[in-house]
Amino acid sequence: MTTTSTHETEITADPDVPLVRITREFDAPPEKVFRAHTDPGLVAQWLGPRATEMRVDHYDCRTGGSYRYLLASDGNEFGFRGCFHEVRPSELIIQTFTFEGVPDGVAPERLMFEDLGDGRTRLTSTSLVDSFEGRDAFLASGMEDGVREGYERLDELLAG
Amino acid sequence: MTTTSTHETEITADPDVPLVRITREFDAPPEKVFRAHTDPGLVAQWLGPRATEMRVDHYDCRTGGSYRYLLASDGNEFGFRGCFHEVRPSELIIQTFTFEGVPDGVAPERLMFEDLGDGRTRLTSTSLVDSFEGRDAFLASGMEDGVREGYERLDELLAG
Repeated sequence: MTTTSTHETEITADPDVPLVRITREFDAPPEKVFRAHTDPGLVAQWLGPRATEMRVDHYDCRTGGSYRYLLASDGNEFGFRGCFHEVRPSELIIQTFTFEGVPDGVAPERLMFEDLGDGRTRLTSTSLVDSFEGRDAFLASGMEDGVREGYERLDELLAG
Repeated sequence: MTTTSTHETEITADPDVPLVRITREFDAPPEKVFRAHTDPGLVAQWLGPRATEMRVDHYDCRTGGSYRYLLASDGNEFGFRGCFHEVRPSELIIQTFTFEGVPDGVAPERLMFEDLGDGRTRLTSTSLVDSFEGRDAFLASGMEDGVREGYERLDELLAG
């Protein structure tokens, strides 16, 4: 039996709190999936939909660091930024996230890297927003497709 | 008619999302109340209950900066830390907050400084936690008294 390399990206909305949870498995060990999230040269190769290009302003992925990057698409650039509250190698990243188009919106994000053995990893990412309206706007914005496509690009990077 | 210098600290829990909102007025202009939140030498003079002493590990209050401080009380020290997501002079501070005793808990906090005119400021601070249990634990922890007492100390600092 062979393991398929196509994994489902599961995106769920919590009924009680305005939280989005994204779960995805990768055919690579936690160290490698983690590094693809912390090394800006690697992040730029997969984050966002295929049609976008990522330009890193700064990306200092350590506890107390911060980041800012731009995604360019069809001649438009969109800025995103935040700070790294905690970075624990191959295990955990807690960061904040703001789309600069909505500068006062901020979502805390938690990325957990779980070792499934056999060189596989489950990545669970949660975003907490400050209202159900904000959460539903996120889900309606087409971000879901961008997340799915980004993770397919990450599959390719990890396999390369 | 004279304005009383004793202000109420209003602490409310949102019914829909696990949010705590704290509102307090100060008899000082926004610039001064803001500075008492960003200058570590001033923060150390009022943050926390009277019985505690604050020791600043680092406190770099600017967009992308981070902080860590310890509150000492009866020979025990408690660590707190986070990162500054956004700092907008005399207007807004968005930061994360973790009590090191619960290292995986993180609350995003938003502090808004509103100019009421006549040298007065309304400070509204909101903390979002990731569950109603977490929020209720915060409210039950006695943190409320610490917040009230801290703001009384801040009144004294601003008047001095």
